[in-house]
Amino acid sequence: MDSNGVDEQQMKLVQGAAGYVLEDVPHLSDYILDLPTYPNPLQSNPAYSVVRQYFVDEDDTVPQKIVVHKDSPRGTHFRRAGPRQKVYFKPADVRACIVTCGGLCPGLNTVIREIVCGLHYMYGVTEVLGVNCGFSGFYSKNTVTLTPKDVSDIHKRGGTMLGTSRGGHDTSKIVDNIQDREINQVYIIGGDGTQKGASAIYKEIRRRGLKVAVAGIPKTIDNDIPVIDKSFGFDTAVEEAQRAINAAHVEATSVENGIGLVKLMGRYSGFIAMYATLASRDVDCCLIPESPFYLEGKGGLYEFIAKRLRENGHMVIVVAEGAGQDLVAESIEQQDASGNKLLKDVGLWMSLKIKEHFAKQRKMDITLKYIDPTYMIRAIPANASDNVYSTLLAQSAVHGAMAGYTGFISGLVNGRHTYIPFNRITEKQNKVVITDRMWARMLSSTNQPSFMNPPNGATEGAN
Amino acid sequence: MDSNGVDEQQMKLVQGAAGYVLEDVPHLSDYILDLPTYPNPLQSNPAYSVVRQYFVDEDDTVPQKIVVHKDSPRGTHFRRAGPRQKVYFKPADVRACIVTCGGLCPGLNTVIREIVCGLHYMYGVTEVLGVNCGFSGFYSKNTVTLTPKDVSDIHKRGGTMLGTSRGGHDTSKIVDNIQDREINQVYIIGGDGTQKGASAIYKEIRRRGLKVAVAGIPKTIDNDIPVIDKSFGFDTAVEEAQRAINAAHVEATSVENGIGLVKLMGRYSGFIAMYATLASRDVDCCLIPESPFYLEGKGGLYEFIAKRLRENGHMVIVVAEGAGQDLVAESIEQQDASGNKLLKDVGLWMSLKIKEHFAKQRKMDITLKYIDPTYMIRAIPANASDNVYSTLLAQSAVHGAMAGYTGFISGLVNGRHTYIPFNRITEKQNKVVITDRMWARMLSSTNQPSFMNPPNGATEGAN
Amino acid sequence: MDSNGVDEQQMKLVQGAAGYVLEDVPHLSDYILDLPTYPNPLQSNPAYSVVRQYFVDEDDTVPQKIVVHKDSPRGTHFRRAGPRQKVYFKPADVRACIVTCGGLCPGLNTVIREIVCGLHYMYGVTEVLGVNCGFSGFYSKNTVTLTPKDVSDIHKRGGTMLGTSRGGHDTSKIVDNIQDREINQVYIIGGDGTQKGASAIYKEIRRRGLKVAVAGIPKTIDNDIPVIDKSFGFDTAVEEAQRAINAAHVEATSVENGIGLVKLMGRYSGFIAMYATLASRDVDCCLIPESPFYLEGKGGLYEFIAKRLRENGHMVIVVAEGAGQDLVAESIEQQDASGNKLLKDVGLWMSLKIKEHFAKQRKMDITLKYIDPTYMIRAIPANASDNVYSTLLAQSAVHGAMAGYTGFISGLVNGRHTYIPFNRITEKQNKVVITDRMWARMLSSTNQPSFMNPPNGATEGAN
Amino acid sequence: MDSNGVDEQQMKLVQGAAGYVLEDVPHLSDYILDLPTYPNPLQSNPAYSVVRQYFVDEDDTVPQKIVVHKDSPRGTHFRRAGPRQKVYFKPADVRACIVTCGGLCPGLNTVIREIVCGLHYMYGVTEVLGVNCGFSGFYSKNTVTLTPKDVSDIHKRGGTMLGTSRGGHDTSKIVDNIQDREINQVYIIGGDGTQKGASAIYKEIRRRGLKVAVAGIPKTIDNDIPVIDKSFGFDTAVEEAQRAINAAHVEATSVENGIGLVKLMGRYSGFIAMYATLASRDVDCCLIPESPFYLEGKGGLYEFIAKRLRENGHMVIVVAEGAGQDLVAESIEQQDASGNKLLKDVGLWMSLKIKEHFAKQRKMDITLKYIDPTYMIRAIPANASDNVYSTLLAQSAVHGAMAGYTGFISGLVNGRHTYIPFNRITEKQNKVVITDRMWARMLSSTNQPSFMNPPNGATEGAN
Repeated sequence: MDSNGVDEQQMKLVQGAAGYVLEDVPHLSDYILDLPTYPNPLQSNPAYSVVRQYFVDEDDTVPQKIVVHKDSPRGTHFRRAGPRQKVYFKPADVRACIVTCGGLCPGLNTVIREIVCGLHYMYGVTEVLGVNCGFSGFYSKNTVTLTPKDVSDIHKRGGTMLGTSRGGHDTSKIVDNIQDREINQVYIIGGDGTQKGASAIYKEIRRRGLKVAVAGIPKTIDNDIPVIDKSFGFDTAVEEAQRAINAAHVEATSVENGIGLVKLMGRYSGFIAMYATLASRDVDCCLIPESPFYLEGKGGLYEFIAKRLRENGHMVIVVAEGAGQDLVAESIEQQDASGNKLLKDVGLWMSLKIKEHFAKQRKMDITLKYIDPTYMIRAIPANASDNVYSTLLAQSAVHGAMAGYTGFISGLVNGRHTYIPFNRITEKQNKVVITDRMWARMLSSTNQPSFMNPPNGATEGAN
Repeated sequence: MDSNGVDEQQMKLVQGAAGYVLEDVPHLSDYILDLPTYPNPLQSNPAYSVVRQYFVDEDDTVPQKIVVHKDSPRGTHFRRAGPRQKVYFKPADVRACIVTCGGLCPGLNTVIREIVCGLHYMYGVTEVLGVNCGFSGFYSKNTVTLTPKDVSDIHKRGGTMLGTSRGGHDTSKIVDNIQDREINQVYIIGGDGTQKGASAIYKEIRRRGLKVAVAGIPKTIDNDIPVIDKSFGFDTAVEEAQRAINAAHVEATSVENGIGLVKLMGRYSGFIAMYATLASRDVDCCLIPESPFYLEGKGGLYEFIAKRLRENGHMVIVVAEGAGQDLVAESIEQQDASGNKLLKDVGLWMSLKIKEHFAKQRKMDITLKYIDPTYMIRAIPANASDNVYSTLLAQSAVHGAMAGYTGFISGLVNGRHTYIPFNRITEKQNKVVITDRMWARMLSSTNQPSFMNPPNGATEGAN
Repeated sequence: MDSNGVDEQQMKLVQGAAGYVLEDVPHLSDYILDLPTYPNPLQSNPAYSVVRQYFVDEDDTVPQKIVVHKDSPRGTHFRRAGPRQKVYFKPADVRACIVTCGGLCPGLNTVIREIVCGLHYMYGVTEVLGVNCGFSGFYSKNTVTLTPKDVSDIHKRGGTMLGTSRGGHDTSKIVDNIQDREINQVYIIGGDGTQKGASAIYKEIRRRGLKVAVAGIPKTIDNDIPVIDKSFGFDTAVEEAQRAINAAHVEATSVENGIGLVKLMGRYSGFIAMYATLASRDVDCCLIPESPFYLEGKGGLYEFIAKRLRENGHMVIVVAEGAGQDLVAESIEQQDASGNKLLKDVGLWMSLKIKEHFAKQRKMDITLKYIDPTYMIRAIPANASDNVYSTLLAQSAVHGAMAGYTGFISGLVNGRHTYIPFNRITEKQNKVVITDRMWARMLSSTNQPSFMNPPNGATEGAN
Repeated sequence: MDSNGVDEQQMKLVQGAAGYVLEDVPHLSDYILDLPTYPNPLQSNPAYSVVRQYFVDEDDTVPQKIVVHKDSPRGTHFRRAGPRQKVYFKPADVRACIVTCGGLCPGLNTVIREIVCGLHYMYGVTEVLGVNCGFSGFYSKNTVTLTPKDVSDIHKRGGTMLGTSRGGHDTSKIVDNIQDREINQVYIIGGDGTQKGASAIYKEIRRRGLKVAVAGIPKTIDNDIPVIDKSFGFDTAVEEAQRAINAAHVEATSVENGIGLVKLMGRYSGFIAMYATLASRDVDCCLIPESPFYLEGKGGLYEFIAKRLRENGHMVIVVAEGAGQDLVAESIEQQDASGNKLLKDVGLWMSLKIKEHFAKQRKMDITLKYIDPTYMIRAIPANASDNVYSTLLAQSAVHGAMAGYTGFISGLVNGRHTYIPFNRITEKQNKVVITDRMWARMLSSTNQPSFMNPPNGATEGAN
């Protein structure tokens, strides 16, 4: 912990019996004394009059690990999300802002919509600003005013109505801007990089002693954020990926020795590829970043392709965008021309490699069709399941900020909405555990090789 | 416990520290002594060679209640599903059968497919029979042989390839048939009525001392089965319901005083209606069986319709098929003619009632369009999410039966696959708890009346 | 013909060699003398600079009958649609209005969009008004201003952004209103009833000697407007009907003796039912208004159902809403109760009848599922093909009105856009000709009975 | 005419009054004398008993040009398709075969299905063989037997159940094989290359004097076959292309200076690109092979992109695969490395070029997303409209072959089914006429530059 207490959050641990630990999230009252509280306006909301126990009990927590033995220690818990009896903001004083960062993901607009509507209808908050085009929009763009009317239909459209961007930003200028505009609730929707930025913003706000709640809503179509059950938009992405796999299957089965190759999202983790493969059942080989593979020699991909084509006459390969990056890098180094930039795309690279291999070998005439549905997947609107999920994530974030929590993300843990400290989701990435059963189920559904024994001196090295 | 032990299952309780209770499922060895065991064939399956801890630890359990306090008692747990180190059937000896009962539900074919493929590819079981047209098919129909090839594409089609039926069956004749055909694993896919039947079959098998594992896979598009997180096909149904709600919205907004009325499934519980409403956001009023309503007088539906039409010029009503059954029954009693059979359908009944009311009142010309998408929803194939879910449910059932468990259903509890005793899911129905937050969220999204204060002497009584 | 010449239009016939006849449309100059003309602004439109022969030759016409013999007379022709060298309105003087009448149909919004955008971008017309809620909106509602921005996305939504209505209207008040608001181009989108209204409006305008062009765009999801190749939205409707037929097929094949019954649009003509049946190939029987049928006795529907169920175990019936109305009327007369209103719906009526028949007969247990997708079909947005078609229809109407034509509808004849006089499309309805080959193809695809020989004394008479 | 008469077909011209010309198709009786005829079995088909004039009048013809003047010459006509009173094959003697060649196209399976079902149900022909994997399958593969049962569901799947291939074939070996297998009807489904092959097969058959009818069904997703109204699958392709354009639009509007680039099919003709652009209305620039463009300088693409981004902040470009091939070729020549093969893809090439240009210029940070939906489009099943169309094309082909016509393709001309001699559709390609109104409509909808005035010394030359 440093002297100004900004790392405080990493230590808000509460111990209990039988090994119980609560990893709590920061609260405005941690660093601002004597904050007044107000009754939650939901108390007088007619919609809630029938609900007896609407407010979350302050002591409610949710365990992270729930496969337990009779005598297991109870382990880490997170604070349950939801409305509190008392809030730390007077609705008329709230001035909230929303920003979306990083790549597109189905459900972004639903989250924006519900932060606006939740603040408005549940808490009577009327001032909500949209920050355009990501973090740097805080200081380089005008804000837009967001009312329930402005956002009423946006959940039916893909993309983000606020615009987004990637890349660097200046924490200090953002916090200056937050101060200058008298914003006191900041909702940040983005992936792990974005949430690291959100964490820095929270720390700077805390350092300055401002009464500003910072809430993150984790977004990653790849599902690579740890702790949470799954990220919003993931279901929609897996669903939409089926179209590409179906097309690949049709192309492959309509010619002799047809290969359908589909690249799916997943820079560092292969969840979409794995689930899309499991859902489809038409895939013969699924390659993900977590599981290295190699092309040549015994047990390699070329051998498997040849075998499958001999057996069935066709095959479908799904490759996550981050798979085989060592192979790609090695292969590209040897050449240098402008077209080769394209080869950084593992799908294009594999297309060329496989075609070249079989052309050189002259034993089998193959026909390979490569499909990259990435932007067709991530640009669609959320399906019903992701719409409900995104709505509840946004409501949880709103309840948390109103209750004075800060420096937290809103996340689903074992099916329950919780508040999780930033550091827990930014310190590592969620990955497919290839020693786990889900991957085994996938392997068993494709019967693909394990690629565990690359031959010595393989001309294409394994990563 | 009675003398023949058939209620044994209801007492397989294991206690642990801090209030831990395991509600265990029966096992063949509970009533057959000295059963031999065999190494699980998965041990030599190449797909699993990379998986270090593939087999489920015998002590793994999953808690039912996971919103906990620091010092909460740990409460009820269920046995974790998954493959065991040892199995109680030699693959070559297994003769399995599959039956589907009750109404259609997206994912039925996926479950059938995966029981066949799971038995075949994971355990080397080659004898799998399909029972046609539900329980009574055991004794009134020929069986069909099911191989992986027969089922390879069925998950892309709606319905059930085995056929289904509702209604009565003779437990004793079914068990006779199981004995006569030398079946030793019975997979029963169906709703709560079906699982009660499955329970009776299990008890009769146990009474006869047969080495036959009975595994249920709970099916209910309405999501009305308790304990489990959700039933397969539910996501797909909510997704597909959006089409009908969208159409109702377009119809309503294209005329003056337009009302779009959509009936959705849900005989006893309104989950589909509630989630479809939350996902869509175009619904002004959602009526479910759990929340009584009334038509006339202050706070009634007619008043709300008139109000919403005056404000917005249009409205969308979603009604679950089981809502307002008291009103319907009362209304029909007064008349008796063959066309009135149709009025048992709450959607048709409400259409007539609302039209008659506004025609009689002569204040407002309304245009009401009624949409019943029931069969268009339940007959579609499972979406990707339900395909994966159905696959894992089926695999869990197969692992459980191979491991000698019986009298269980395969179910998801807090995101983990578990084995649950029959009685826990047949003794009551899962319902929308209208004093809970999810319903409050729904009410808050529609701003509909609570229907809590029916006027005295309302001509249509509240139920 | 009356003395003031309002029936003039029915006589604008031009004769040519070899039996050539042109049925021309009225022109403002027919009754207003010395109208000035202006060069078409498209001449200076950069988009058209590459197009050599952009303007339609004044003599271009399109034959109605194109299956010809070597020596056939050339027959009726219509004037080709498209931009003319000279226009009869100065763009700055144009004040156009658009009205939509009757039931919803995919493509309505596309037509509205393109009238606005076509007037704006092609001719520089900036004043376009929308009349709300159909004909009566002329005098009972405010108009809305329509700019390209207002309509830029509406083609992606179903319904009509202007609202619509059915029923009576007062021609004189409409024309008063047109005069009072100084409107000089009237675009009327609607079915045959609406176009009769449009014709009356045109005649009254002509009687008053106003320089107001009246252009109709025929709308009928049923495709029951004569002369034109097909109506916009028809393709989309046939496409969407496949969902219902698929669901019926799945329901029917998933039970023993399953019957799936689908009602499709078509009050007086069975085109949607016929094309949807041909496209699907899962239909066993297609019933349309043009082809009478009967239920009982030899050659009747009950007999055919029993036969098909015995052969295949399941069947799908498609019935157009207007089929069998004699049977329905006769059946309902015998009873009188409020629920029986529902029986006017031939689908509900057939459901009850078929169920009752087989219940009474006690030979076969059937399961019938009835699907009415009407509103789910007509409320969807136009598909790509209908979007292009609707766009071109609207452009043709705009070109026609600008060129001074009036009292015409814009319609596709043998794949060419033409202008057709009102009377040609309102004097009779387009119907499936059951002595024609298309119906024979349909019959041959279902192998259904011809219902040509109703037995004497059938308890249900044939219509 | 040469001595062996193989060019006979090009001269089957019949003249009539008023400039009437019939371009007739060959008939078996043209080169085989005294062929017996048989009554058409349809005469006793119950489905046709209601149809009074089922058989096509021998004199029925359809004009190619139907925009006519009062005194126009009547011009070229084609023979109307359909069943004839007399057939030239005894059904029991028919041995038909079907082959599919070239790339995938929605509707292929529907055509196959209907040839089989049409022959079977309409004519009682039971021997139909499928040739696997294209022309070379005649001599290098076994045939498969095709019955109505085998093909009953294939129209719901994309691709071709027979497999396909591109490339060379040996006409003589094919005809040998036809003779050896005693095939007497050959149905050939494929594009212009394939129909040239079909023409050669027909000529060789004629040279050998065989009683074998050769019927082509033209297939081209690009719609590049002349004479006919449109090719089957085209509607479906344009529809499916909307997904890609929508995704590009969402991507482009969600970032600052976002460019969505979509490549669509169309090697030599830009119909899909043009219609997809017209249907969508979200496209800012549509580039097709028929309309050259250039990148740099005044009036070039870079300038237009910069302008549109400054105005709107985003843009969507649709490029047909065959557009700008001169530019691509010129650009690639300058370099030579394996990655550059990828640059032959105009979409990848343009992506790189545009990115490089704006990176070099340093004035505008753009974000470009490239989408290539090609295989996702062509692998889907036909939509309802294409299903009906494909069905009728196949039926026409069957009627034609049974009636003894040969050396013809079955095609839609001005909405009527006709028989067209091979040479008319192979002698040139159908192209977007950029001096015609459809292209003007397209330009007017995008307001893109005409690219008519490439600057001198542009570094990228215009093609």
